Amino acid sequence: MAYALWKQMKHDPKHPDWPARDRFVLSAGHGSMLEYALLHLYGYGLTMDDIKNFRQWGSKTPGHPEFGHTAGVEATTGPLGQGFATAVGMAIAEAHEAAVYNRDGFPIVDNYTFVLMGDGCMQEGVQAEAASLAGTLKLGKLIALYDSNKIQIEGSTELAFTENVQARYEAYGWQVLCVEDGEDVKAIEAAIEAAKAETEKPSLIIVKTIIGRGTPNAGTAKVHGAPLGEENIAIMRQTYGWEYEPFEIPEDVYAHYAALADACAKPKAAWDACFEAWAKQYPERKAQWDADHSDALPVDLLNDEAFWAFEGKAATRASSGEVLNRLSKLLPNLMGGSADLAPSNCSTIKDAPDFSANCREGRNIHFGVREFAMAAAANGMALYGGLRPFCATFFVFSDYLKPALRLSALMNLSVLYILTHDSIGVGEDGPTHEPIEQLAMLRSIPNVITFRPADAKEVAAGYLAALTHRCPTALVLSRQGLPLLETTGKGALKGGYVLREPKGTPDVILMASGSEVELLYKAADLLSVRGFTARIVSMPSMELFDAQDAAYRESVLSDGIRARVAVEAASAFGWQKYVGLDGEIVSMPGFGASAPGGTLFEQFGFTPEAVAKAALRAIEKNR
Amino acid sequence: MAYALWKQMKHDPKHPDWPARDRFVLSAGHGSMLEYALLHLYGYGLTMDDIKNFRQWGSKTPGHPEFGHTAGVEATTGPLGQGFATAVGMAIAEAHEAAVYNRDGFPIVDNYTFVLMGDGCMQEGVQAEAASLAGTLKLGKLIALYDSNKIQIEGSTELAFTENVQARYEAYGWQVLCVEDGEDVKAIEAAIEAAKAETEKPSLIIVKTIIGRGTPNAGTAKVHGAPLGEENIAIMRQTYGWEYEPFEIPEDVYAHYAALADACAKPKAAWDACFEAWAKQYPERKAQWDADHSDALPVDLLNDEAFWAFEGKAATRASSGEVLNRLSKLLPNLMGGSADLAPSNCSTIKDAPDFSANCREGRNIHFGVREFAMAAAANGMALYGGLRPFCATFFVFSDYLKPALRLSALMNLSVLYILTHDSIGVGEDGPTHEPIEQLAMLRSIPNVITFRPADAKEVAAGYLAALTHRCPTALVLSRQGLPLLETTGKGALKGGYVLREPKGTPDVILMASGSEVELLYKAADLLSVRGFTARIVSMPSMELFDAQDAAYRESVLSDGIRARVAVEAASAFGWQKYVGLDGEIVSMPGFGASAPGGTLFEQFGFTPEAVAKAALRAIEKNR
Repeated sequence: MAYALWKQMKHDPKHPDWPARDRFVLSAGHGSMLEYALLHLYGYGLTMDDIKNFRQWGSKTPGHPEFGHTAGVEATTGPLGQGFATAVGMAIAEAHEAAVYNRDGFPIVDNYTFVLMGDGCMQEGVQAEAASLAGTLKLGKLIALYDSNKIQIEGSTELAFTENVQARYEAYGWQVLCVEDGEDVKAIEAAIEAAKAETEKPSLIIVKTIIGRGTPNAGTAKVHGAPLGEENIAIMRQTYGWEYEPFEIPEDVYAHYAALADACAKPKAAWDACFEAWAKQYPERKAQWDADHSDALPVDLLNDEAFWAFEGKAATRASSGEVLNRLSKLLPNLMGGSADLAPSNCSTIKDAPDFSANCREGRNIHFGVREFAMAAAANGMALYGGLRPFCATFFVFSDYLKPALRLSALMNLSVLYILTHDSIGVGEDGPTHEPIEQLAMLRSIPNVITFRPADAKEVAAGYLAALTHRCPTALVLSRQGLPLLETTGKGALKGGYVLREPKGTPDVILMASGSEVELLYKAADLLSVRGFTARIVSMPSMELFDAQDAAYRESVLSDGIRARVAVEAASAFGWQKYVGLDGEIVSMPGFGASAPGGTLFEQFGFTPEAVAKAALRAIEKNR
Repeated sequence: MAYALWKQMKHDPKHPDWPARDRFVLSAGHGSMLEYALLHLYGYGLTMDDIKNFRQWGSKTPGHPEFGHTAGVEATTGPLGQGFATAVGMAIAEAHEAAVYNRDGFPIVDNYTFVLMGDGCMQEGVQAEAASLAGTLKLGKLIALYDSNKIQIEGSTELAFTENVQARYEAYGWQVLCVEDGEDVKAIEAAIEAAKAETEKPSLIIVKTIIGRGTPNAGTAKVHGAPLGEENIAIMRQTYGWEYEPFEIPEDVYAHYAALADACAKPKAAWDACFEAWAKQYPERKAQWDADHSDALPVDLLNDEAFWAFEGKAATRASSGEVLNRLSKLLPNLMGGSADLAPSNCSTIKDAPDFSANCREGRNIHFGVREFAMAAAANGMALYGGLRPFCATFFVFSDYLKPALRLSALMNLSVLYILTHDSIGVGEDGPTHEPIEQLAMLRSIPNVITFRPADAKEVAAGYLAALTHRCPTALVLSRQGLPLLETTGKGALKGGYVLREPKGTPDVILMASGSEVELLYKAADLLSVRGFTARIVSMPSMELFDAQDAAYRESVLSDGIRARVAVEAASAFGWQKYVGLDGEIVSMPGFGASAPGGTLFEQFGFTPEAVAKAALRAIEKNR
């Protein structure tokens, strides 16, 4: 299957980053050795030593394919189903970029996205979400190959999986093709041709294979993960008439692949010529292409007064909508959508149409109620290149998409997550819709910026942080209105900063994020009446703060001041790193409840009085 | 639809906990008012004042239905798709309990599970997973009603969802019935009858409805979440000829429902008689039934020497398999399975058959590669009653099931999560399979016991904790072998305890969980050579430790000793609550890598030397 596919793929081992290459995603990532073998044979730079170091420290051949680690690997895969959903995102990106950039006679964006799935992928929910979305969007250039060997780790797939996959995919609006024998190269080639020919529907090619074919354990779960063993390997070698040593590849095999690889150069050269001519004829498009493919921002947002200008009280989700729309004009490659909550998430680009089967230039994607596939697709859009993808849902449902956010982080993808309704401020919808532990969940993932702004200016800072870091950023935004605070602003880019400093050494440091920062001012005023002084610290992003140098961190959280109070309408978990053993945390003791948001803030103790009391306790403790 | 269904349902408002009642799950939980209206009219104890206090502080009518909060509510719903998957678990439980308890002429377990879904549920991946599983398991007594109104928050479902739901469900092996008019009570009743008659396949009834019917906004997204407004309400009243005041229910309506409710008493009385006769005829079964429906354990495990007896080195996943099998003999209602990782999770009950379409008494469930539906189904099994469900996967894939674990916690369900391969000890599979932030993720969820045992004895403690708490427990278990430690044991039930105490006040407290506890002994020995003494603390469960009284906590983490070191091959996030600002944490700086587990422990600094060095730093800092 892999042989037939790669032979037909448009790619060039000498230019693994060629933008017009066909994409190949190994969604069944545990079969990484298959991909490494192809990369080795095609000359992508993987040596036989790399192959020998399979799954060893420092090797280019880790247990699962890793994007950015091994040339030619298009996506980090392994967590099942996600590679497929990521491929759907790549196909969305291709369709959009083609509409934006292609001109008559210049098909500079024109590639297929191939994805190889196993039975595991076929069982995961994210796969179902993504397949349904791909059918709706008529992603005709998406071609999935399903390695159907009927075996999973616990035994026959019959134990858990008796559905009719073909009928299911047809119900999604896919073309489904079947190949009865996974080693019939011609039949697979013909199926791929038929899949390419169908441009209205995505195609699924079901390829029936035998796991461990040619070994005594063929067709059993024994060959899924466990080594074959010397004896069975000997039998397999006999079966196939394979007379070479381990790691020895016959010269004619190398020669055969070298010829295939050489043939790749021609389409690449043709594309180069086409691209050059297009660039000449459409210099404005070429300039935009370059901008889209650069991390650099077209204007100096940090010093752009208009970018930081806001007025009046607003929910940070509304401010986010405002900033997103300011940016969308500067950055035509901002593209994304919501899992059916766009009006609530304020995540619509107002002057852009919807991306749909009929409107590929659209920038607003209706992902449907499919948070996980949405995020995985956003990863695919980021991987495709040229786009700055965003996706949106209620913060509490970041739970549903967390596995994809983890892969954004692992792949260093600048996917923007717009997560609104960020605390018990959600109110009436009650505990199922009120995030409590989600901030801790995000803050504990390596390589993610979690940013919970206190007001509109901090929202702007959050977007700027997202646009200038090569990692995912989660903007965590309020449902309820928040006032513009006095001294907020660019300081937020440092993650944590002082909003108000009293004269002399403060008696206590008050810190919070998001909607709770407002409380600190009022608590400080109450403390002042009692004769105590407080430093007020806004901490929108622990990750950005922790990345500052020691002197700066000391200027905000001075070691000598141990009377510290953190306030967050969420789990206390994690705040101890700033308040230590001698501070106080005003936080949620458990899940929320259903009532107006203001009532919940009062009932759960998020009041100036409660914060002031906590401060007095902290001052007392640290006398 | 609801009227037709509840009229046909076997239930008794006077006995909401009647074990043989039909179950009704409102998967589209945002329609909670529909369920509250039914509960009010049927006389489940919801008063008109409760209705008037819809979504207010302290009311019995929160924004989404909450199990345990409102009599008659079978499951907490709202996070879309999950109610459906939970219903699949209830249907699994019913099929199993019927096989275990029913005898000829005594169908004491015999009920349908009904679930009401919306377009949102239909789009979520967890729904797809659960539907496929239900088809495989031929859960003929599961009946789903799909309120197909073609409208979602962003507009028409056509924007995101054009698939053929009927064909998809048929592909899963379901019977699919259609009702063209959602207000045609007779047609709905007929469909429900047809669904009940089909005993081999689960049934989906697609009911076409018009959202906001009878209002000017009918059939549009405007009526999804926003209030109708006075004017539109007036028009609706006119359309329906409804002449009563708000919250006024005509007496004949109450009388009608009272008659329906009265009629419920008869089947309940018949069942009572049947149950009594069964209990007489099968006293052993009755005794087991009582045991199964009690939280109490049949033996005093705490003082059962055999339960705590282990020998030699073993991976805690293997010890878990051992303990699970010891318990399965005592607790025939232990039932569960893995998301296709049973051999790796060591989660098979060895002397029990598989639960399948042909073997309902089986206790091992093959959930397939469907972590999320697995956990949601386990919730359903727990809700059904009489069972102690467990589910298993790799710890890193707790990400996939987290939304269901959150609902276990919110519902106080004692679901056991067996999560193996718990750190970079996973080794060769690499970063996609190595948990880093998952411990923080679980520890930050309210009402979850996260338990990471250091050896086999602590595994036993973890199981005992799980069996004696009304909340979910996550057992976090190693892939790699771990030695039996000297002084581990029942102390682990306190969450954190001292394993070794030097003479006099220790210079430093060393603490860790799981596989890293072993390192502490070796580090302490190194420190001893340098003339420093260390207290060694095992901290398998922060939640259990935090629940101890202050004096106990002080005896383990004495306030006067601030030189503290925590060691965990995971994110440091959260450990600061024990080490404070002046301690040290030996932890993972980012994601893992692909290499043998032992190599990774060395490369990432989980060595006695590194721990000892950290201890010296902590001692120095706190001089």
